[in-house]
Amino acid sequence: MTDPLSDVSLSELRSRQSVKWRMYEPDVLPLFVAEMDSALAPPVAAALTAAVERGDTGYPHPGRFPAAFTAFAERRYGWVVPSEPVLVADVMVGLMAALDEVCGPGDAVVVSTPAYPPFFRNLELSGRRLVSSPLKVSAEGFALDLDRLEADFASGAKAYLLCNPHNPCGLAYSRAELLAVAGLAERYGVRVVADEIHAPLTMPGVGHVPFASLDTEASALAYTAVSASKAWNLAGLKAALLVSGAACARPASARDLEEHVGHLGVLGGTAAFEEGEEWLDGLRAAIAVNAAWLGAELARRLPEVAYFPPRATYLAWLDFRALGLGDDPAEVLREKGRVALVPGLDFGAEGAGFARLNLATSPAILAEGVDRIVKAVR
Amino acid sequence: MTDPLSDVSLSELRSRQSVKWRMYEPDVLPLFVAEMDSALAPPVAAALTAAVERGDTGYPHPGRFPAAFTAFAERRYGWVVPSEPVLVADVMVGLMAALDEVCGPGDAVVVSTPAYPPFFRNLELSGRRLVSSPLKVSAEGFALDLDRLEADFASGAKAYLLCNPHNPCGLAYSRAELLAVAGLAERYGVRVVADEIHAPLTMPGVGHVPFASLDTEASALAYTAVSASKAWNLAGLKAALLVSGAACARPASARDLEEHVGHLGVLGGTAAFEEGEEWLDGLRAAIAVNAAWLGAELARRLPEVAYFPPRATYLAWLDFRALGLGDDPAEVLREKGRVALVPGLDFGAEGAGFARLNLATSPAILAEGVDRIVKAVR
Ligand SMILES: Cc1ncc(COP(=O)(O)O)c(C=O)c1O
Ligand SMILES: Cc1ncc(COP(=O)(O)O)c(C=O)c1O
Repeated sequence: MTDPLSDVSLSELRSRQSVKWRMYEPDVLPLFVAEMDSALAPPVAAALTAAVERGDTGYPHPGRFPAAFTAFAERRYGWVVPSEPVLVADVMVGLMAALDEVCGPGDAVVVSTPAYPPFFRNLELSGRRLVSSPLKVSAEGFALDLDRLEADFASGAKAYLLCNPHNPCGLAYSRAELLAVAGLAERYGVRVVADEIHAPLTMPGVGHVPFASLDTEASALAYTAVSASKAWNLAGLKAALLVSGAACARPASARDLEEHVGHLGVLGGTAAFEEGEEWLDGLRAAIAVNAAWLGAELARRLPEVAYFPPRATYLAWLDFRALGLGDDPAEVLREKGRVALVPGLDFGAEGAGFARLNLATSPAILAEGVDRIVKAVR
Repeated sequence: MTDPLSDVSLSELRSRQSVKWRMYEPDVLPLFVAEMDSALAPPVAAALTAAVERGDTGYPHPGRFPAAFTAFAERRYGWVVPSEPVLVADVMVGLMAALDEVCGPGDAVVVSTPAYPPFFRNLELSGRRLVSSPLKVSAEGFALDLDRLEADFASGAKAYLLCNPHNPCGLAYSRAELLAVAGLAERYGVRVVADEIHAPLTMPGVGHVPFASLDTEASALAYTAVSASKAWNLAGLKAALLVSGAACARPASARDLEEHVGHLGVLGGTAAFEEGEEWLDGLRAAIAVNAAWLGAELARRLPEVAYFPPRATYLAWLDFRALGLGDDPAEVLREKGRVALVPGLDFGAEGAGFARLNLATSPAILAEGVDRIVKAVR
């Protein structure tokens, strides 16, 4: 297995034009937005280079992309996808199209917080009411709080925006937890819309259970948004898929959404799902090394920072509260340490005093990041 | 000057995965959707290949794209762009964001018909009322019907969706015509939203006049959507720009729209505007050759088909009515001739009996297309 996270030097990374490398001044080490510091998986790079060579940059056609995902999901998760996935520009667009099928403006949508920041903004833009249902935390880490979730479902919610695996806490929900969610969804008539963008990125030995793969009524009524964009770093290429559960209508907006999809995202995503698994497994191993190293290093140098290594995603959700840096430690780290993390407050009120760090980088850059954090707080 | 339209063979084109090459069976010659059969302009291909090599596929950042367009517009059209253009995923998204600034659901928006088909769908989706204002036609070809436009403005319209150059009729409006439009817009309080996606594609010797470059009140109140996607064939890469007139508010949705933009569209578009003019001029010359050849060939072999060579765009709007093929000649051509054009009716009621042909292909493929048309109708 290759190690995709040790391929690219910092000076090469600094020549990138994406948000991660252009948002802050060049002396800031960017460990914030969810882009990876890997090179592209070779089959993905080959597909994109060949497309550019062919001049194949016209309007997107789904081609083999839906079938490539379907086969990947069956091989990888044992999930028999019940319908032809619909092409959308990105996961957020897919989630909102799914919500349009299950609820309307003014309706309440439950989100387990802390949560991916655009959930807040997009629910607001579409006129939904976001009901924040905090995760619970114990000595073992974060977990779904099923009692709280039940109370929130019971108070009239129409939909649950399930993020599995969970950003930023790195949870990979178990079959038992998801069955409990399905039971609650059925009891209270709540429709589940699942964001499974991080699904390929479980840690070695950890499996992903698609909510829609459960044998429950709630699963047949669920929509699931997926993409190759996180696990193969194609966020800027704009292609994702929306899977309708067996008992769901195909989204009414499907044809209109297709017009805004990126053709190279379709081609890159197809290559990723068809030929990208070996590279993916190398990546997962490299992320696991970084996740474990960070735990040991924080324990040694900054034991005040609480951190539960993720079971999926390349994200580390760091609790700086014991250091007394205030609600926005990321600001202190950026100003004093010249290292950029995502402010915890972007993920909701529960994020006060937290910051999110991106582990998808080389061990050397991660070590430099920790040095800068230590420098900022000591 | 190179000839960008003679670079790519039919068998190479058939390996493309875009809509043009995947929509119909492989024995159909596709001359329908607005993708070009050229290779990419070398500076654009170089920028995209380098980005793939760098693994530069993360979230989009505007970078030099807005400034690249601003400089291009000043060099090319003498237009001093009055504000920093806003990044959007495509021109249609930009137009709708602009309309959101100038009118609301239920309001009437005037469109000069025949018109780009998604105008109809997107105005409907956003709850606007489309007022069809037909172009007039004379022995010299199509032109704005200013009397009709005045009547439509006078009947309570809030906005005019100006398509300049005009798809499908290939009009490049003159300064005098645009000044007349501006005068009417001011008289009746109509806001102009200009779609100038085809602006780089005027015929050799024909200039493009940006509506917003006029020294009028209506121009200062106009929004303009532009892109490199038509002239450099980057439609699948999803990047465009929205320019606010000097007296316009910056669109409220600007930051939200940026999330759905394609990063490679930004990089490709930047290279196109910065370094793509020489290639563009070669392309314009090659389109002009095809446009003139088509006129001569139709006169010789199918004189019943009326056709006014475009003054801009690579589109030929063909009037088949004298042949008695019914309202949808494109269907007859596809079934009997195995050549795909766009049905005229997609462009509105005025398109009955018409079809649109794409001239951005090699002379050999265009000749094959005409052979197939002749075979279908004789
Ligand atoms: C949970 C989650 N959903 C959605 C997204 C964004 O996906 P997209 O860019 O496809 O909308 C991200 C990106 O990091 C994410 O973490
Ligand atoms: C007049 C006109 N506007 C808009 C578009 C589409 O542009 P985009 O794909 O950037 O929305 C086209 C495409 O051919 C067009 O002809």
